[in-house]
Amino acid sequence: MWKWKEVYALTDIVLYWCNIMSDLPIAAVIRIAKKNGAERVGVDAAAALLAKTEEYIVRLTKEADRLARHAGRKTIKEEDVDLAVQWIKD
Amino acid sequence: MWKWKEVYALTDIVLYWCNIMSDLPIAAVIRIAKKNGAERVGVDAAAALLAKTEEYIVRLTKEADRLARHAGRKTIKEEDVDLAVQWIKD
Repeated sequence: MWKWKEVYALTDIVLYWCNIMSDLPIAAVIRIAKKNGAERVGVDAAAALLAKTEEYIVRLTKEADRLARHAGRKTIKEEDVDLAVQWIKD
Repeated sequence: MWKWKEVYALTDIVLYWCNIMSDLPIAAVIRIAKKNGAERVGVDAAAALLAKTEEYIVRLTKEADRLARHAGRKTIKEEDVDLAVQWIKD
């Protein structure tokens, strides 16, 4: 039998490994796509979806950060994200 | 010492658990935000970023799927995603 300590240590290693492999897991993006009507997603399309999603997060964060600083804060709040989404859409 | 079979089995369990916990891992979204200049991200803002990102993937997938079907395909390709991004921006 394993000791719990050993199991915890291995779990930590695997979780760490999941995290550093990529910023966003491609499996998650494909799963969301399939849940929303996509019948088949090509490998090239999955990579493109991932890249565009990351770009979107970067754009959204930069706008939200700018809005937070404009409001005299260093911490981004929900209201910054909500306003940033509108800026990006316009 | 552990047998490799046991290690593989446990790794599978942990990876499966990572995957079912949420569609997109919040840690990944925060990591991308912090890499791109966000000093601090509030808990509410992180949840909002996650929600908006999922919405974006859904919108992008639906447009890409429509474009793929328009081109007589059931499989979404990179070109569908690229065109969908432009539709969404306009």
